[in-house]
Amino acid sequence: MAIEDYKQFVFAFLAAVSFGLISIIFVLTWVLHYREGLAWDGGASEFNWHPVLIVVGFVFLQGIAIIVYRLPWTWKCSKLIMKFAHAGLHLLAFILAVIAFVAVFDFHNAAKIPNMYSLHSWLGLSALLLYSLQLVLGIGLYLIPVAPVQWRAAFMPLHVYSGLFIFTAVIATALMGLTEKLIFALNNPKYKDSPPEGTFVNVLGLLLVAFGALILWIATRPHWKRPSEQALLSLLSSSSEDPAQGPAGGPAPLRPADGLAGEGAEDLRRRSTKQSDMDD
Amino acid sequence: MAIEDYKQFVFAFLAAVSFGLISIIFVLTWVLHYREGLAWDGGASEFNWHPVLIVVGFVFLQGIAIIVYRLPWTWKCSKLIMKFAHAGLHLLAFILAVIAFVAVFDFHNAAKIPNMYSLHSWLGLSALLLYSLQLVLGIGLYLIPVAPVQWRAAFMPLHVYSGLFIFTAVIATALMGLTEKLIFALNNPKYKDSPPEGTFVNVLGLLLVAFGALILWIATRPHWKRPSEQALLSLLSSSSEDPAQGPAGGPAPLRPADGLAGEGAEDLRRRSTKQSDMDD
Repeated sequence: MAIEDYKQFVFAFLAAVSFGLISIIFVLTWVLHYREGLAWDGGASEFNWHPVLIVVGFVFLQGIAIIVYRLPWTWKCSKLIMKFAHAGLHLLAFILAVIAFVAVFDFHNAAKIPNMYSLHSWLGLSALLLYSLQLVLGIGLYLIPVAPVQWRAAFMPLHVYSGLFIFTAVIATALMGLTEKLIFALNNPKYKDSPPEGTFVNVLGLLLVAFGALILWIATRPHWKRPSEQALLSLLSSSSEDPAQGPAGGPAPLRPADGLAGEGAEDLRRRSTKQSDMDD
Repeated sequence: MAIEDYKQFVFAFLAAVSFGLISIIFVLTWVLHYREGLAWDGGASEFNWHPVLIVVGFVFLQGIAIIVYRLPWTWKCSKLIMKFAHAGLHLLAFILAVIAFVAVFDFHNAAKIPNMYSLHSWLGLSALLLYSLQLVLGIGLYLIPVAPVQWRAAFMPLHVYSGLFIFTAVIATALMGLTEKLIFALNNPKYKDSPPEGTFVNVLGLLLVAFGALILWIATRPHWKRPSEQALLSLLSSSSEDPAQGPAGGPAPLRPADGLAGEGAEDLRRRSTKQSDMDD
């Protein structure tokens, strides 16, 4: 990665982490300063675990898990270690999200509020179910070395798209949750009278959007992709028969596999002796 | 485009259009059957133009505008005509969105409800302002032939990303709007008691998500991109000196320019006599 490109990546990454951490500070300030605090007692303090764990786990950790392959300082680590980091962070995010769901169901049941009536709850539960499916399929296809390489490559574009889609849906659902809570919780003054808490939580919403936008930007820049093992090797060997050679005849620069299917294609390349048509 | 690929594209496109049109039927049924109907009288019937015009313009037309280059049956049309179609649909979406905003401000002012207090309003106005900026920059850079080709190429990844980001933000904001309206409007039975209207509008929310998911899928498949003018020409001429030739020595299949920067790179190629390093 060229130094200018590296600087741009680091800037985007630090901005994303900053927005994520400030979001966590905001959601903690919200429940501890403006609301009833945190407890596990079936009351409002238990509900408050819901936004906290969603922001920490389902938004922040999921976002970091998505871009973990793209951190240039991890490119010396083996792909397997990075797969464990990717899956581990997602698993942690999933566990925190499940606890967040338990908190809100407990609170509803204790307060005799119906569950699963709102669009927020429909989308949130759908996102959690899709996330668990994504985890199971991701581990089964890419972490446990049993799936045929053709399956891995074929499924990779869907794995990447689903990951970004679920992440985006989680942020959208979180924004709906903030909206619901502010309307229900704020009385005298109401949400429409713009009390400090309303404005504060609106800013939290904007922070979540900024975090999501930066993660999606980082995750979709083709030139920030972790280079294939082949590209790393060819850079070292500088062989004149290097199939990654550019069309002009010169050596190809260290560049990611094209397209979002790179991860699967990489596995395929490593195991295949002949060049496949995915190799451009 | 291979026939199998063409079939998959047509299936995804028809599914997207179907979800979009069913969303429009749902939002019309909502305001005409469950709510007060449509009028321009400062009352609730004027407010109802807000969700209708947002779904028709800011969601459906914007979504179609985003993928208009990817319709294979338009690839015989000149790029300039398609640029006018792309910009024209976006402009129409923008006009409908502005009228939708006027409707809600009028309604608020007549009913003495404050404007711009909610996260929904903050995100919605931000999306509209970003959309207007995107329109002005898009027309200035890509439709009026004055901008330097280097600028066009350099700005294209940001143009594409911003377009998809604004579209996604609009759908998220629409979901927040549905949530707000159901909480405010439903009384006896309330939203939490799951009256038919609540469930009906929740389904509208799911339809909008499905439409958005399909548009984003279609817009991000690299092999569904409109081929560059160069690729179209080289397919016709089958020149052996074709720079788009594949690494294996055979003729390259008709394929899009790599990456999201293709549109700008294409302009650059057309005007440049030597091969640039964007040409792989």
